[in-house]
Amino acid sequence: MTTVTALPPDSLARAKPLVEPALKEAIAGLHPSLALMSGYAFGWCAADGTPVCAPGGKALRSAVALLVAQAAGGAARDAIPVAVAVELVHCFSLMHDDIMDGDELRRARPTVWKAFGSGPAVLAGDAMMALALQAAARTGVETACDELADSLTSLTRGQAEDLAFEARPFTGPAAVSVDEYLAMARDKTGALLGCAAAMGAAVAGAGGATVAAYRRFGNELGLAFQAVDDILGIWGDPRSTGKPVGGDLARGKKTLPVLEALTSGSAASTRLARLVQRPLTGGDLRRAATLVERAGGRRQTRHHARTHHQRALHALKSATPRPGPGDDLAELAAYLLHRTA
Amino acid sequence: MTTVTALPPDSLARAKPLVEPALKEAIAGLHPSLALMSGYAFGWCAADGTPVCAPGGKALRSAVALLVAQAAGGAARDAIPVAVAVELVHCFSLMHDDIMDGDELRRARPTVWKAFGSGPAVLAGDAMMALALQAAARTGVETACDELADSLTSLTRGQAEDLAFEARPFTGPAAVSVDEYLAMARDKTGALLGCAAAMGAAVAGAGGATVAAYRRFGNELGLAFQAVDDILGIWGDPRSTGKPVGGDLARGKKTLPVLEALTSGSAASTRLARLVQRPLTGGDLRRAATLVERAGGRRQTRHHARTHHQRALHALKSATPRPGPGDDLAELAAYLLHRTA
Repeated sequence: MTTVTALPPDSLARAKPLVEPALKEAIAGLHPSLALMSGYAFGWCAADGTPVCAPGGKALRSAVALLVAQAAGGAARDAIPVAVAVELVHCFSLMHDDIMDGDELRRARPTVWKAFGSGPAVLAGDAMMALALQAAARTGVETACDELADSLTSLTRGQAEDLAFEARPFTGPAAVSVDEYLAMARDKTGALLGCAAAMGAAVAGAGGATVAAYRRFGNELGLAFQAVDDILGIWGDPRSTGKPVGGDLARGKKTLPVLEALTSGSAASTRLARLVQRPLTGGDLRRAATLVERAGGRRQTRHHARTHHQRALHALKSATPRPGPGDDLAELAAYLLHRTA
Repeated sequence: MTTVTALPPDSLARAKPLVEPALKEAIAGLHPSLALMSGYAFGWCAADGTPVCAPGGKALRSAVALLVAQAAGGAARDAIPVAVAVELVHCFSLMHDDIMDGDELRRARPTVWKAFGSGPAVLAGDAMMALALQAAARTGVETACDELADSLTSLTRGQAEDLAFEARPFTGPAAVSVDEYLAMARDKTGALLGCAAAMGAAVAGAGGATVAAYRRFGNELGLAFQAVDDILGIWGDPRSTGKPVGGDLARGKKTLPVLEALTSGSAASTRLARLVQRPLTGGDLRRAATLVERAGGRRQTRHHARTHHQRALHALKSATPRPGPGDDLAELAAYLLHRTA
């Protein structure tokens, strides 16, 4: 249960071909203009509809739903509608977040709003949300509507809080605290992974306590994932991450490494506090990354990642998973902690 | 059952105070920034949060849900979660449609995106969708998730088709046909009213055939409503409608009166076809309205409104409603046909 690897585990590679046909079938039922934008977002086609094979995301939420269903005593195929629902919600939230954040690139391609316009991208996101709901209704999970509603409410609250952070200072009494950041990340990243895990368990007929344990597993996994994401957002290799070097710093994002560094009280922290008062470019970006590291921001963020990873494993253990898929879930968690992309 | 009136019926006035407290409670649970935008959209506050009492819509979907619940043998209060869900979906779709259409005014106030920015308005719409889903999960209707998913899928398909119409010509082989327009309106306006009626019946414990009859009632009511809306969009009094004179013509919208006029083959139709090739302003707007009327566009649209109104009444009759609320539903339908605002 303690495999350490930077390579994507087999479970991710296995999830995609199981879920993709059902995803494609759902999307084929949309209005042609919406199906085109959705197919583009999943990396299945170019903006003009030409079939391509662009990187379309990790299928992480799918893998969690399928593996949890198996770990809870069910079959992976029974969780396909769950996987479809959570992948659609994830894709919908990326589409809309990219509009709000003004992000022009995702996985090294123009974002949907950049390629098709903001209005159409809003609508395509809405349509994927509607499809997600249809898929949820077909899971056979009695609480599917509730589960999806709760994760959507959390997603929007997390994004609202993330947007509100932009208007708040890095330092001083109104500064964003580490705890506030973690609460935001729990909503924005943890909730949907928790939903994927909980619905995967529910579809396998698990009882309330087991469903809750898997939800905690997904939730904590999401927090570990986000902490690692924040590290990669500053120190990641652009060739692996598909994102620009120091991208989060350049955009003035209040991420965990920066917030931790600013609370360390060290000399590096004081210098960093002065530096982040203005937009960062070129040499300042490198300087800021060095100061965040010297002030312990990277180490502390790594610590958060490990803590939530440990909590995820603890929740997983308490759900008493079947050994094979249980090991796969632990391997997936280890990969998310050690990944470089 | 054949009351003809241009005054809003009591049932609309009664629905609002029943549903609004539950709506307000749901919205109060949102992130403060999202609650503000939602409250603004419903006409409860100004953009800075100051309480106001601005016109916040007709509560038409609420009234239909509550009255159908009573007509099907239940109590109005049991349908409050249904009413909350459909009002939230309606408000969400207006918020997002206003972004896509670039509309700057709604009910004589700046639209949400105009007052708060497009990104925040996208998110506020998403949050209302999530709340709608939470409300639907609480209706006690087993098929609530399905019902809402289907109406959302229809809404997005209708809006996609409406946007696609903009890029198509008024005349020639690629012109938008009247049948295509009606299919779009069934998706964009009929589906949600059908959902409100169907869920109102389901919450009262009605059987499948009765639920389906009420869904047809709502659906046809929506089509009649849209036809009247199209007439008011050209010939309505701006003081009553809150919209500019000839607004739909000025925006080059392909509405039912124009499409009908263009297919009449009359001399007025030919002149209209030439006129609408370019954007209309000032005197051309008045001329276009006159030509649409002369070519029979207004009369034909009135005919569509009456046809769908009749079909709605027929569906209502087949559901064998309880007399009191059944009469109220017929009165509501008559009002929608004869309204001037």
